[in-house]
Amino acid sequence: MLIVVPDILPRGEALALRDSLRADAWVDGNVTSGAGAALAKRNRQLPEESPALKAARARISAGLAASPLFLSAALPRLIAPLLFNLYGEGDAFGAHVDNAIRLDPGSGRRLRTDLSATLFLSEPADYEGGELVIEGDYGAAGYKLGAGQMLLYPSTSLHSVTAVTRGERLSCFFWLESMVRDNEARALLFDLDQSIQRLTIDRGGDDAEVLRLTQIYHNLMRRWAEA
Amino acid sequence: MLIVVPDILPRGEALALRDSLRADAWVDGNVTSGAGAALAKRNRQLPEESPALKAARARISAGLAASPLFLSAALPRLIAPLLFNLYGEGDAFGAHVDNAIRLDPGSGRRLRTDLSATLFLSEPADYEGGELVIEGDYGAAGYKLGAGQMLLYPSTSLHSVTAVTRGERLSCFFWLESMVRDNEARALLFDLDQSIQRLTIDRGGDDAEVLRLTQIYHNLMRRWAEA
Amino acid sequence: MLIVVPDILPRGEALALRDSLRADAWVDGNVTSGAGAALAKRNRQLPEESPALKAARARISAGLAASPLFLSAALPRLIAPLLFNLYGEGDAFGAHVDNAIRLDPGSGRRLRTDLSATLFLSEPADYEGGELVIEGDYGAAGYKLGAGQMLLYPSTSLHSVTAVTRGERLSCFFWLESMVRDNEARALLFDLDQSIQRLTIDRGGDDAEVLRLTQIYHNLMRRWAEA
Amino acid sequence: MLIVVPDILPRGEALALRDSLRADAWVDGNVTSGAGAALAKRNRQLPEESPALKAARARISAGLAASPLFLSAALPRLIAPLLFNLYGEGDAFGAHVDNAIRLDPGSGRRLRTDLSATLFLSEPADYEGGELVIEGDYGAAGYKLGAGQMLLYPSTSLHSVTAVTRGERLSCFFWLESMVRDNEARALLFDLDQSIQRLTIDRGGDDAEVLRLTQIYHNLMRRWAEA
Amino acid sequence: MLIVVPDILPRGEALALRDSLRADAWVDGNVTSGAGAALAKRNRQLPEESPALKAARARISAGLAASPLFLSAALPRLIAPLLFNLYGEGDAFGAHVDNAIRLDPGSGRRLRTDLSATLFLSEPADYEGGELVIEGDYGAAGYKLGAGQMLLYPSTSLHSVTAVTRGERLSCFFWLESMVRDNEARALLFDLDQSIQRLTIDRGGDDAEVLRLTQIYHNLMRRWAEA
Amino acid sequence: MLIVVPDILPRGEALALRDSLRADAWVDGNVTSGAGAALAKRNRQLPEESPALKAARARISAGLAASPLFLSAALPRLIAPLLFNLYGEGDAFGAHVDNAIRLDPGSGRRLRTDLSATLFLSEPADYEGGELVIEGDYGAAGYKLGAGQMLLYPSTSLHSVTAVTRGERLSCFFWLESMVRDNEARALLFDLDQSIQRLTIDRGGDDAEVLRLTQIYHNLMRRWAEA
Repeated sequence: MLIVVPDILPRGEALALRDSLRADAWVDGNVTSGAGAALAKRNRQLPEESPALKAARARISAGLAASPLFLSAALPRLIAPLLFNLYGEGDAFGAHVDNAIRLDPGSGRRLRTDLSATLFLSEPADYEGGELVIEGDYGAAGYKLGAGQMLLYPSTSLHSVTAVTRGERLSCFFWLESMVRDNEARALLFDLDQSIQRLTIDRGGDDAEVLRLTQIYHNLMRRWAEA
Repeated sequence: MLIVVPDILPRGEALALRDSLRADAWVDGNVTSGAGAALAKRNRQLPEESPALKAARARISAGLAASPLFLSAALPRLIAPLLFNLYGEGDAFGAHVDNAIRLDPGSGRRLRTDLSATLFLSEPADYEGGELVIEGDYGAAGYKLGAGQMLLYPSTSLHSVTAVTRGERLSCFFWLESMVRDNEARALLFDLDQSIQRLTIDRGGDDAEVLRLTQIYHNLMRRWAEA
Repeated sequence: MLIVVPDILPRGEALALRDSLRADAWVDGNVTSGAGAALAKRNRQLPEESPALKAARARISAGLAASPLFLSAALPRLIAPLLFNLYGEGDAFGAHVDNAIRLDPGSGRRLRTDLSATLFLSEPADYEGGELVIEGDYGAAGYKLGAGQMLLYPSTSLHSVTAVTRGERLSCFFWLESMVRDNEARALLFDLDQSIQRLTIDRGGDDAEVLRLTQIYHNLMRRWAEA
Repeated sequence: MLIVVPDILPRGEALALRDSLRADAWVDGNVTSGAGAALAKRNRQLPEESPALKAARARISAGLAASPLFLSAALPRLIAPLLFNLYGEGDAFGAHVDNAIRLDPGSGRRLRTDLSATLFLSEPADYEGGELVIEGDYGAAGYKLGAGQMLLYPSTSLHSVTAVTRGERLSCFFWLESMVRDNEARALLFDLDQSIQRLTIDRGGDDAEVLRLTQIYHNLMRRWAEA
Repeated sequence: MLIVVPDILPRGEALALRDSLRADAWVDGNVTSGAGAALAKRNRQLPEESPALKAARARISAGLAASPLFLSAALPRLIAPLLFNLYGEGDAFGAHVDNAIRLDPGSGRRLRTDLSATLFLSEPADYEGGELVIEGDYGAAGYKLGAGQMLLYPSTSLHSVTAVTRGERLSCFFWLESMVRDNEARALLFDLDQSIQRLTIDRGGDDAEVLRLTQIYHNLMRRWAEA
Repeated sequence: MLIVVPDILPRGEALALRDSLRADAWVDGNVTSGAGAALAKRNRQLPEESPALKAARARISAGLAASPLFLSAALPRLIAPLLFNLYGEGDAFGAHVDNAIRLDPGSGRRLRTDLSATLFLSEPADYEGGELVIEGDYGAAGYKLGAGQMLLYPSTSLHSVTAVTRGERLSCFFWLESMVRDNEARALLFDLDQSIQRLTIDRGGDDAEVLRLTQIYHNLMRRWAEA
């Protein structure tokens, strides 16, 4: 399930973050890519020692934790440190696949990359090209979201960023390990949660069907989730 | 999930079946039991060539096919030939476990015994003792249902029939292989189906939540079921 | 995985089939739809006794059996009887979900609907509207293929046909149970098969890596497939 | 599998704990319940800062760690902080389902609630009503155990506490994540362990069949357990 | 699990079968091999119309059905038609992997090749070379059994027959689909069955531990087996 | 999959480690064995407070981390503290099975023993007997490797060390929990990784088939691995 989470950050805050990060010193983006991907990657990335990094991470982490849509769709178990990249003119990232297991050098902790996320911090009008293309099960589709909006998609998919032909594209990206690894199971839980939310509004939280569906939701989680 | 299906046959028809079958020649019940069970079994069973057998099977099969409760709870894939047993005074069947795989000698077909069913054809007043005891996950419980009522329970459980101390107990019993082998998954689907039935009455079959829950039901079936 | 299989029938043969079927008597399409879908469906379907049905089924079945792309992507285990529908002006089919288990009334056989297929027998120019819309994991997309081309997609997805506003759309559709029920596992096997085909051309069938990858393919099938 | 663990604490110690805890300040019990359950809950709970809490937790934790029956049946991986509740006259807890995933606010750690446990610290004679009712797969059953005895049951089940109509019921309750999430798999391992214990007494620990069954037990654990 | 089944046929009968089959007309063995294997295969095989084939198949099928060791280790669900091959001087079969799914052209039925079997009909003294080499998880090992003995091994393994340098090697071979597809699960069930057989001799069939272990065996079958 | 990792330590370093450890005080080896194994064990082991232990562990850990063959075959998630044992004349360890779950008393951390490893620190010429015998699925085989070489094998297998009849055998042994618990799945991933390594050399890391196979590898990891 690919989903647009429209409101991780208000547009104004996203653009302010963009501006605060742009001033930092950026480095070659190949530091985080797997062996197979290295040749096809041409962009810049923010190093760990970047002064603006810490505040940006904190602000976006708060936005993630406050988004019911993100939490219900991703069921996050571990979120890798948020990273930032910058595509200038001519930069691109060829079709590639993310490694299944990533080590966070800071904490020494490993996580399984079930889901990938890109939070756009530039406006689509800021650049030409720079589309995030996801080769999903149903064909390829390109995405270019407004500042503050986030695309969440299975890390199983092949993806790329087309060449930026004008302007600059700055975004935050990260991987997460979900409590539910199976993409179709997770999507089904999301749908069930949506129905429960709707029926709770219509019938109240102590309605017998709401309780029964809630029990089903939790028992599917018991079957599929790692806490 | 153990469930009482209350209406496979109307009481009058069940008793009429009982009377039609009693007149036939019954044989030692050990013909259908697994090796380990043989010593503990003392009852009689109706042989394949019994004249009343065919009509009784047809009548009960029709009752099963017409019971939405049975179909939704059991999700039957294959039903073994219906059998009949008779417990007279002193007859009993010690705690035993049914074989996981059974061969139908008639068709040469095998089935996995996921669920066991006992359809009571005698009235509880007809006999003393003769309780069907299921040692479920939540302790043992005894069952003695009215004529025409059926107990459906996982074949994974240890079960027994206590000694009949007066009168006679005649019943139909059979195994079935379910489309969904996992007991907890099947119970969850049953609960979901119950909620969908209720919400369809309340909101109509083309309500968005009814459609979404129906899609979830069918996609869980795709995940779990063998057709 | 949604896939276009471009060559089940040559264009000319597809159009000839279209013409041969059009002359038959068509009936209300609700005969094959699940309970929840009935209200939203408005089209016509070819009845079993239709004179042109048998030959059309045979021709298309031969086309399916001769398509390596279809066989590798679908890994078909059971194919339900091929059906045909006709959308005239104003006809449409609202978003719906196919039942997970279908009974073929002819053979009494059940199958699990893992994959759905629509083989277009009309040309896109023959009608306006009539798009097959698949609400996949990655958003909705509409399809309108050339005569003789087939769309194959997971039956887990919600789908619809938009209203035909001009002309007539005739197509063949069917469900199949795959040897591999899990959509992502089946897609992975398809990808692996594609690599093996390519490497066999490049390195020969007795190359050590071709043999090793072939062994991996077959051992994944042993793990996932029901024959 | 629902199981009574009879000897977590000697009766005298359980009653002494009860007395030590009663004197503390109790608060509204809704602090630990999931959203759906809140309306139906009416009891009191011991807050984290309660002076007697720490010693009570330590004593009961020692009792759990010393119970082979508990360890073999639960195969505990993570035990949530032990909680205590108090039902006075008129208090009750309607049928509800526990959340699948719980966060321990103290440690920031999450656990999956596979099993629920209630350790009775009051004597049945201390109160009327206050039955713990488990709606298991095999129907509902009520439990009211002696002081020092514990009920361990799958968190998948719907459960309730009937209204206390006289006196006071004080108990310790907690959730745990098991190394083996599947209830039927865990019950099977428990049965196998019981047989191995019995055969070890009869035949000695180095008997060939004891060794073979032990190897089977450990290899089933390797297949099913998260350490 | 690779296992030698020592007594499918008495030695004398095996040699008599060998003699009866040798007289028939043999054909190039590539008729049954998968695409990848064809180049490496050099042997002869008995065609379907061979006069001695039918009786040989019947005799060996009876031997299989009468072998408790074979039945317990293989848990056969479907056995492909028995085939026969003959390696003369210079014949060999390079390392290859069997296709996961095979179609029996006679019945149109497919089976998954979980296990492979070779029943030796020649004596080791009849030929030099001609070893059946299995590249198992634990390295490669060569087998050359006595007439009437059978090697049963997972079809997941790479295997070969080394060149015959003197004499002639005639054997029967076949694939089977097991009720339990997972090799390690099937091996575990075999071990458990062995323990139950031993304990039944020592303690009797109605011993409590024998009953409990039997219940465990059947419940593992319910979990893992397709009937 | 049993595998010899030939180069964890250069021979000279292994022998130097052997000499440094020999001088320490060794204790009865039963401290780390499960209950069932105790009777059959007769060897010595290095206690935690041994002065040479820390440096030996560090050196070998570095050797493990630097071995691509070990990392690809084991996919280690947690490695238990490295242990050392010494078999003198007459010492042996009867056939036994390792416990599935082990607690490291130092860290309080549990791990599932998916794989067992023995790194030989003595030369085969140093002793007679002392073979490590693995009763694998394909029969038993004995191993006696050169100093610095390591045997890695599934902990599901029964294993033993035959009596040392001359000299002394010193080795390092440990258990590990793999990211992929299923032995056959892990072996398949190892084979796929081997093919990818080979094809990367032949075709380059940005070849389309190398990228596709790499995506398959990572998506199988996503399906099977716990990070």
